[in-house]
Amino acid sequence: MIRVAIAGCAGRMGKTVVEAVGAADDMEVACGIDPHGSDAAFPVYPDVEAAVGGTEFDVLVDFTQPDVVAGNLAVALPAGIDCVVGTTGLSNETLERLAQTAAGKACLFYAPNFTTGAVLMMQFAKAAAPYFPEAEVIEFHHANKKDAPSGTAVRTAQIIGESRGFESSAPGSETEIAGCEGARGALVDGVPVHSVRSMGYVASQEVVFGSMGQSLTIRHDSWDRTSYMPGVLLGIRSVGEQEGLIVGLENFMA
Amino acid sequence: MIRVAIAGCAGRMGKTVVEAVGAADDMEVACGIDPHGSDAAFPVYPDVEAAVGGTEFDVLVDFTQPDVVAGNLAVALPAGIDCVVGTTGLSNETLERLAQTAAGKACLFYAPNFTTGAVLMMQFAKAAAPYFPEAEVIEFHHANKKDAPSGTAVRTAQIIGESRGFESSAPGSETEIAGCEGARGALVDGVPVHSVRSMGYVASQEVVFGSMGQSLTIRHDSWDRTSYMPGVLLGIRSVGEQEGLIVGLENFMA
Amino acid sequence: MIRVAIAGCAGRMGKTVVEAVGAADDMEVACGIDPHGSDAAFPVYPDVEAAVGGTEFDVLVDFTQPDVVAGNLAVALPAGIDCVVGTTGLSNETLERLAQTAAGKACLFYAPNFTTGAVLMMQFAKAAAPYFPEAEVIEFHHANKKDAPSGTAVRTAQIIGESRGFESSAPGSETEIAGCEGARGALVDGVPVHSVRSMGYVASQEVVFGSMGQSLTIRHDSWDRTSYMPGVLLGIRSVGEQEGLIVGLENFMA
Amino acid sequence: MIRVAIAGCAGRMGKTVVEAVGAADDMEVACGIDPHGSDAAFPVYPDVEAAVGGTEFDVLVDFTQPDVVAGNLAVALPAGIDCVVGTTGLSNETLERLAQTAAGKACLFYAPNFTTGAVLMMQFAKAAAPYFPEAEVIEFHHANKKDAPSGTAVRTAQIIGESRGFESSAPGSETEIAGCEGARGALVDGVPVHSVRSMGYVASQEVVFGSMGQSLTIRHDSWDRTSYMPGVLLGIRSVGEQEGLIVGLENFMA
Repeated sequence: MIRVAIAGCAGRMGKTVVEAVGAADDMEVACGIDPHGSDAAFPVYPDVEAAVGGTEFDVLVDFTQPDVVAGNLAVALPAGIDCVVGTTGLSNETLERLAQTAAGKACLFYAPNFTTGAVLMMQFAKAAAPYFPEAEVIEFHHANKKDAPSGTAVRTAQIIGESRGFESSAPGSETEIAGCEGARGALVDGVPVHSVRSMGYVASQEVVFGSMGQSLTIRHDSWDRTSYMPGVLLGIRSVGEQEGLIVGLENFMA
Repeated sequence: MIRVAIAGCAGRMGKTVVEAVGAADDMEVACGIDPHGSDAAFPVYPDVEAAVGGTEFDVLVDFTQPDVVAGNLAVALPAGIDCVVGTTGLSNETLERLAQTAAGKACLFYAPNFTTGAVLMMQFAKAAAPYFPEAEVIEFHHANKKDAPSGTAVRTAQIIGESRGFESSAPGSETEIAGCEGARGALVDGVPVHSVRSMGYVASQEVVFGSMGQSLTIRHDSWDRTSYMPGVLLGIRSVGEQEGLIVGLENFMA
Repeated sequence: MIRVAIAGCAGRMGKTVVEAVGAADDMEVACGIDPHGSDAAFPVYPDVEAAVGGTEFDVLVDFTQPDVVAGNLAVALPAGIDCVVGTTGLSNETLERLAQTAAGKACLFYAPNFTTGAVLMMQFAKAAAPYFPEAEVIEFHHANKKDAPSGTAVRTAQIIGESRGFESSAPGSETEIAGCEGARGALVDGVPVHSVRSMGYVASQEVVFGSMGQSLTIRHDSWDRTSYMPGVLLGIRSVGEQEGLIVGLENFMA
Repeated sequence: MIRVAIAGCAGRMGKTVVEAVGAADDMEVACGIDPHGSDAAFPVYPDVEAAVGGTEFDVLVDFTQPDVVAGNLAVALPAGIDCVVGTTGLSNETLERLAQTAAGKACLFYAPNFTTGAVLMMQFAKAAAPYFPEAEVIEFHHANKKDAPSGTAVRTAQIIGESRGFESSAPGSETEIAGCEGARGALVDGVPVHSVRSMGYVASQEVVFGSMGQSLTIRHDSWDRTSYMPGVLLGIRSVGEQEGLIVGLENFMA
C-alpha cells in the first residue's frame, strides 16, 4: 500500500487527486496539506513540514501554485519522500537543484502533461512520422483559450519534424487563394498546425498522416480534469523504484 | 425506362456514367457520343446531331469539355431533349440563353457538384448554423490540389455566415503565438476555414459546430469519381418533370 | 426581458439552468422554487403556489422529479404561465390533460432531449436517409451506462428506417465469422446499431451514410450537462408565442 | 539502384507495383514476368526461369496467384534473389521450406498486409492497451465484403487482449435491451469488435481507447490499392540486408 500525501488537497485538482488515490486498490491518502484546511476524513496539515512531522507517507503529490511548490519540495525531498509534481513554473535549473537535495534517497518526478493519451499520441506521432510524406496537426480547444496553437500542438509538430528527417513537399506546393491567407495553417518545423476554437470542445488534438492511398489518424480527446489521474497514479506507482530528477510521463510508459 | 445518351462516353467520367446508367433498373444507355468512337455495345455517334438523327433518347448527359458542351446543348435542347450537365465553364448567361432554346419543351439541368453527400453537408450546415455560436470548416484534399481552400469549403463558410445572422466571438478573441500565424485558418465571412493537403486524402470536408458542452460534426468523404453517380442518376430521374434552367442538385433533394 | 422561474433550482440541473438564464441577454431569473431553500441572490419559494403568489414571472422551467412535476404544472398552467419541462416520467395522457388546464392561455412544452445538436442529428439523419443505400448508427457512452443501445440510437435508427422507404441490402449480405456473432450490431428497423461503452466518453453518437464512392457522417458529442442549456433557452424564448401542448425541441428548430 | 523484377506485371496489383517502383528514386524496373506478355517499356518474360536467364535483378516482387507463387520462389531464391511476396495462400511450412532453398544467400519476405498505416495501427494499439481500461475496435468495409469482422480487426483485438493483461469491466457490465442483441458487438479476447458495411467505405478501422475523462482514437483509412505501395517499397529496400524467412512488415518498421 503506497501512502500518499496530497499538497493542495482542498483545490480543484487536489480534490480530484484525493478521489483518484482513494479509489485505487494499491494506495491510500495518508494526509493532505492545505493552508485553508479541509473537512476531509484524513489529517490535513497547514504545510509540508507539519505533515512530515505528523504522518508517515511515501509520496507527495503537488498540484499547488508556482510560488509554493519549490518550498514544498525543499522539505519533502531531503526527508526521503518521492515527489510527483504537476505544478508548472519551475525552471529546469530549479528542478535539478531540488532533486539533488534528495541525495539519492528520493525521486523528483515532474510532468508538464499527465494525460496518458496525450503522451502516447506524441510517441505514436514520432514513430509514424518517417513513414508518411505528409503530416498535419489539428487541435480543438474551448473558445476561452486565449492562445493558438496549443503548446501540445507545437510540441507535436516539432517531434514530427525531428523524427522524419525529410521535408514534406505539401506545404508550399499549393497556393492560398486571395483573401484566404491562413488556410494552410501555421508552419511549425515544416508541419502545418491548425487551431479550432469553440465552446464545443475542451481539449482535443488530431494528427493526420498521409501516404499513397491511405491516411493514419491519431486523435486524443479530453473533457475533464480527471484525464490527468491515470498519469498521476502511474507516477505514484513508478517513483518508488527511481531516484533523481525525471521529467515527462513518457519515462514510465514503455 | 428512361433512355439516356452520354456525351463524352469514351472519357473517364463518361465511362463511369455509362456503367452507372447501365446498372440502374429504371434507365438504359440509348447511345453514346464521342468523336474518338468507342468499342461499346451501344451505338456511338461522332456528334449530338448524328445521335439525335440516329437514335431516340430522353436525356442527354454531358461530361465533356468547356468548348464542346455549348454546341451539344444547342442541338439537344431545341430537339426537346432534357440535358444533365456536369461540364464546367458555362457562364450563367450562356446557360440561360441555351435553356431558352428549349422553348419550354425541355429542361437544362446544370450542377457544379453532383456529390449528393456534399450537397447535403451544405444544407445541413445552413440548418445548423443559427444554433451554434461557433462553426469552422476543415477540408482535406490530395497534395496534388494546387489551391487552398477548396471552392466547396469557401461556399460552405459563406452559407454558414449568411444563415446564422450573428458574428461568432471566437475568431479574434484569441491570439496566434509568434511564428505561428495562420493557425486560426482563413476567415471567410467570419468562419475560419482550414485546409489540409496530403496524399492520404481524395476529397473530404468536415464542418464542426460548437455550443455549450456539445459539438456537432458533419463530415463528407469521397474517394472516387463514382461519388458523382448517385447525383447524376438523381438528375436523370428528375429532369423529365421539369423545364427551363435548373442549377444545383439541391433543387432535387427536398 | 423574459422573467423565468426555475423549479428545482438547488439541484444540479437546476443550478445549471439558473446560470444559463442569468447569462442570457434577453431573460432573467425571477425566482427559484426548491423545498430545500437556496442561498441564491433571487427569492426562493418552497413550492410553485408560493412562487406564483410572491413574484411575477412568464415562464416556469421544471427539471425536478417525476413525482413533483405534475403538481408544479397543475398550478402554473391555469395561472397562465408557460412551462418548459425536462423532467421525464409524464405520460402523453398526463401531458395532454395538464396542457388543457391552461385553457389556451399558456403553452406546455416538454422535450425528452434538450440537446440542440442531438435533435439536429436526427433531423439530418431523416433528410439524408433516402439518398444513401446504407446507414448505420454507432453510439458511444460512458461505461457506467447500464443499457445498450441508447434510446437516442434506437430512435435514430427508426427515423432512418421510416424515412428511406427501402431496405438496405448490406445487413444480411455478409456473414459473421464463427465466434464473432454480434459484429454487425443490433438490427433496428433494418439499420445496424453499434454500442461502445468506455470511461472515455460521456455521450456521443455517429450516423454513417454510404453511397457510391462517398460517405456522409453526422456526429454529436456531448460532455457536460450544459449541453442541454441552448435547448432550454430556445424553449424559453419560443413558448411565449405558442399555446397548448408541444412535445419535442424540433418544433422550434425550423 | 535496386533492380526489381515484378511477377504478375500485367495484373492490377502488378501494374501498380511497376508504377511505384518506376517512380522511386533508388530503384528501377529491371523486367516483368507475365505469361500474357505486356506492352511495357521493359523486357517481359513468360516465367521466372526465363527472367533469371535474361536479365540481372536484385529483388523479385510477387503479387501473383496462390498456385504460381511457390514455383516462382523455388526458382528465384536458389538463384540468390531476394523475394518480396504479397501473394497469399502459402502455409508457414511452405514458406520455411522455400526460404531454406536460398541457402543463406537471399531473403524471403512475406507480408499478409503491406499497408504501413495498418501495421502501425496494430503496433500503437499494442502499446496503448495497458494504459486504458477500455478498448473497442470498429471496422468499416465496402458492402461487397462477405465476412465480418475483418481479419485485421480480429487480429487487432487479439493484440490488445494479449498486451493489456487485464480484463476490461465494460463488456458485460451493461445489458442489451430486448430486440437489440448484438449492439455490443462481437467479443474477441475480451475486446468488442464492431463491423460496419457500406458502399461508402473501402477499408477503414478505428481503435478507441478510453480512460478517466479521455479517449484515444487510432484510425486507418485506405481507399486504393496504392496503399500497399509504401510497404512494398519498404520491403524492397529492406531485404538486401536480410536473409532467411521474414514474415510481417512490422519487422522493418522500428
